[in-house]
Amino acid sequence: MIERAIATVDGDRLRADIEANAEFGQIEVERGRGRTVLPGTEADRRCRERFVNRLLDAGLEVRVDCVGNIAGRYVPPGVDPETAPVASGSHLDSVPRGGIFDGPLGVYGALEAVRSIDEAGCDLARPIEVVSFTDEEGHRFKDSFIGSAVATGSLDPVEALSLTDNQGETMRDGLDRIGFHRQGVVDASEWDSMLELHIEQGPRLDRADVPVGIVTGIAGQTQCRIEITGKADHAGVTAMDQRTDALAAAAMLMTKIEAVAERLATDRGTTVATVGEIDADPGAANVIPGRATLSVDIRDTAIETMETILTEIDRALETLEANRGVETTIDRRYTVNPVSMAGRCRDALAESTAAAGVSSCSLHSGASHDAMLVASVTDTGMLFVPSREGRSHSPLEWTDWDDCTAGTRILTRALARLASD
Amino acid sequence: MIERAIATVDGDRLRADIEANAEFGQIEVERGRGRTVLPGTEADRRCRERFVNRLLDAGLEVRVDCVGNIAGRYVPPGVDPETAPVASGSHLDSVPRGGIFDGPLGVYGALEAVRSIDEAGCDLARPIEVVSFTDEEGHRFKDSFIGSAVATGSLDPVEALSLTDNQGETMRDGLDRIGFHRQGVVDASEWDSMLELHIEQGPRLDRADVPVGIVTGIAGQTQCRIEITGKADHAGVTAMDQRTDALAAAAMLMTKIEAVAERLATDRGTTVATVGEIDADPGAANVIPGRATLSVDIRDTAIETMETILTEIDRALETLEANRGVETTIDRRYTVNPVSMAGRCRDALAESTAAAGVSSCSLHSGASHDAMLVASVTDTGMLFVPSREGRSHSPLEWTDWDDCTAGTRILTRALARLASD
Repeated sequence: MIERAIATVDGDRLRADIEANAEFGQIEVERGRGRTVLPGTEADRRCRERFVNRLLDAGLEVRVDCVGNIAGRYVPPGVDPETAPVASGSHLDSVPRGGIFDGPLGVYGALEAVRSIDEAGCDLARPIEVVSFTDEEGHRFKDSFIGSAVATGSLDPVEALSLTDNQGETMRDGLDRIGFHRQGVVDASEWDSMLELHIEQGPRLDRADVPVGIVTGIAGQTQCRIEITGKADHAGVTAMDQRTDALAAAAMLMTKIEAVAERLATDRGTTVATVGEIDADPGAANVIPGRATLSVDIRDTAIETMETILTEIDRALETLEANRGVETTIDRRYTVNPVSMAGRCRDALAESTAAAGVSSCSLHSGASHDAMLVASVTDTGMLFVPSREGRSHSPLEWTDWDDCTAGTRILTRALARLASD
Repeated sequence: MIERAIATVDGDRLRADIEANAEFGQIEVERGRGRTVLPGTEADRRCRERFVNRLLDAGLEVRVDCVGNIAGRYVPPGVDPETAPVASGSHLDSVPRGGIFDGPLGVYGALEAVRSIDEAGCDLARPIEVVSFTDEEGHRFKDSFIGSAVATGSLDPVEALSLTDNQGETMRDGLDRIGFHRQGVVDASEWDSMLELHIEQGPRLDRADVPVGIVTGIAGQTQCRIEITGKADHAGVTAMDQRTDALAAAAMLMTKIEAVAERLATDRGTTVATVGEIDADPGAANVIPGRATLSVDIRDTAIETMETILTEIDRALETLEANRGVETTIDRRYTVNPVSMAGRCRDALAESTAAAGVSSCSLHSGASHDAMLVASVTDTGMLFVPSREGRSHSPLEWTDWDDCTAGTRILTRALARLASD
C-alpha cells in the first residue's frame, strides 16, 4: 500500500500547486522567479485561500487558529479522529523579493503526500495533519516563527497579535482584514510527531549532487549588538597616538570574531559567526569615528560552542577597553538553543530513502525553521532537497522539479511509516 | 612705533567683533556657543555686511570679487597704493553647528592688527590687505577652499560659480541673492606675503600650555574610496570556509591601515590615516556582506609618506584578492600636496613672539587652511592659538580671549615687520 502511495505522488500536481501559489505576490525580475508574501497582505490572503480550498478539495478537515495557522486533518478510514496525528508542513509567507520554494514546498509537499496516501488507501493508525504556519520569515512584524511559536506555547497569542509593523498596524488587524484571525490555537504538543520538507538554502546537496538530505539537528542562534564608544576627533589634527578610534577598535574585533569562528569550524564544521551590520558615527571621511555599532550572528548545533565564541568576544572587548580606552557594551538580543531531530523521525526518513533507492546524506541545518520550535514539544524530523548554488531568499532560489518530487516521495513514505504505529 | 601698535591692540574690541559675528547663524546649544554659516545664506550675508562695514569704519578700501572674496586694503601714509601688499585673513563661513572662532579669529584679528598699526602711526613701506575668503569649509557646495582656490588661480571662477548644492542652487545664485557676486578676482599672487591667524583645532598647544604656535608646514591630504566586493550569502547556511565576506576583508584592511600609519607616525609624528566612513551591503544581521565601502583619509607633511601608505594599501588589497577571492577597487578622489611655510614669514612670526616675550613652539598643521593654497603663489605663514581640549567644528570649540589677544599682538608685529621691507 505504501508503495502504491509512493507511485501516486504526482510531480505535476505538486508543481502546479507551487506554481499557482507563486502567482500571489509575484514580482518583476530579470532572472529567476520571485514573490513577496508578507503576513496580513492581499498576497497572503490569496495564498491562504487557495491552500484552504486545496485542503478541502482533498477532503481534509480544516482549522484556522487565532494567529492564522492553518491545519488540515486527514483521518484515514477506521481511525479515531482524536488519535494524536503525525503532522507535516511549513509556511507560505516569504521574505521581500524571495523565491517560490522556501516554505510552499513543505506545505504543498505535505498535502501531496496526504493525497497520495489517501488515493493509495494505505492502512494507517493515525491521522495526518497538513500545516501552514503564520509568518515564519518575520519581515513585517520584526519577529520570526510567530505561528510555530504560538503553536508550541513559547509565544503568547495575545502578544503575537499585538506585534506591530512599521506603519503601526497590528498582526491582529492584518489577519482580521484578510479573514484569518479565528479562534483557538493549533496545538503542536498534541501531535505524535512532525516532519518538515524544506529546501536546503545552502550549497552542500547541490555540490555533492545528492537529491535528499536528512537533517540531524538545527543550529542554535544568538544575535548580539555591540557598541564601541571612542572619541570623535578631527582626522587631520589628531595624532595616531592621541586617538580613541571606535571603528579601528571594531575592525580588530571583527577580525577576531572571524578568526575564532574559523578555528572552531575547523573542528566542527557547523560553527559560523557573522558581522552583517556595521555603522560608524558620525560617518564622515574627515572625522575619526566616535562610535561604532555592529551586529554579530552566531550559530552552531552545540550551545557550548556558541558560548565559547561569546566568551571570546567578551575577552576581546575587555582587551579593547584596556588597550584602546574605548567603552563597550554588548546586548544579547536573543538566543535560540540548538535542537536535535528525533531519532525515530530520522530513522523513518532514512528507511524511506533506502527503500526508494535514493542516495542521501545527513547534514545539519544552519538556518532556523518552524521544525526547530516544534521539536521542543514533540518528535520532529526534517528533510532537505537541493538549492541550486545554495541560493535562497532571492528570485534566483531554485530546486529542480524532479528533486521536489523525490523529496515528496521520501516524505510520503516516512509519514505513512510514522502514522502506521 | 611698532611697540605702540602692539600696545593699541584692543582685546575687547576684537572680542566684540567676534561675538557680534557669532550672532549670525547662532544655534541653540546646551553647552558652548555654536553657529551655522553656510555660503550664500542669510547668516552669511549678515556676516559679510558687518565685516564690510567694519573695514569701511577702519578707513580701508574694500573690494568684493566674483566669488565673494572680500579684501580691505590699508594704505599707510606716503605709501604707493599699488605696492604689493602684505595680506592677512581667513574665512567667515562655518561647518554646520560649528564654533565661533574657526575663521573669524583670523579675519577680525587681521582687522584689529591693521587698526592698531594705523592708530599707532607705524612707518610702513607696503599696504596691508585684510581678507575674508569665501566658503573655506565646503559643506554646502561639496568643495572646500573655493575662495582661496579662485584667488590663487587653481580654480576657474566660472567653474566655482557653477558648483551646486543639494537643492540644485548654484554658488552664483546663492552669492547673487545676498549681493556678494561682484566683478574680478582678488589675486593672491600680487601679494608680497600672507599671514593667517587661526585656532589650532588640535590639543598640542593646550596640553603644552603654550599660547602661540608657529606653523612649519601644512600636511597634504589624500582621500580615497575603497570598494570590496565579495558574495552576499545566508549567515546561517554558509560555512566559514565557503564565504567571500566583504566586510571581514574590510576589517583586515582597516587594521592594516591603522598599523601602517602608527608605524610611520612613530618616526614622523605628522602621519595620520583615518577610516571615517564604512558601509556594508546589504547590511542585515543574518546576511554575509557582499560589498563593503570605506573612505580613507591620509595626511602628512611629506608626500612620500602619503605615497608609502597608498602603496601599502594597494599591496593589502592585492593580498585580500589573492587570499579571500574578493574584488577591490580604489578611487583616489583628490590629493593636496603638503606645503612648507615661507622662511621669512616664520622668521617674522618668531621674532614677533620673541619680542613679545611670549613662549611659543613650532608645529605642523594637520588640518588644511586657506593659507595652504595661498602658499602656492606667495610667501605664506601661519600662527596658531590654543583650542581648549583640541576641540573644533563644534559648539564646544573654545579659545581663551587672552590667547586671541596674544595671537593678534604677535600677528600685528609680524605684519608690521613684513610691511616694513
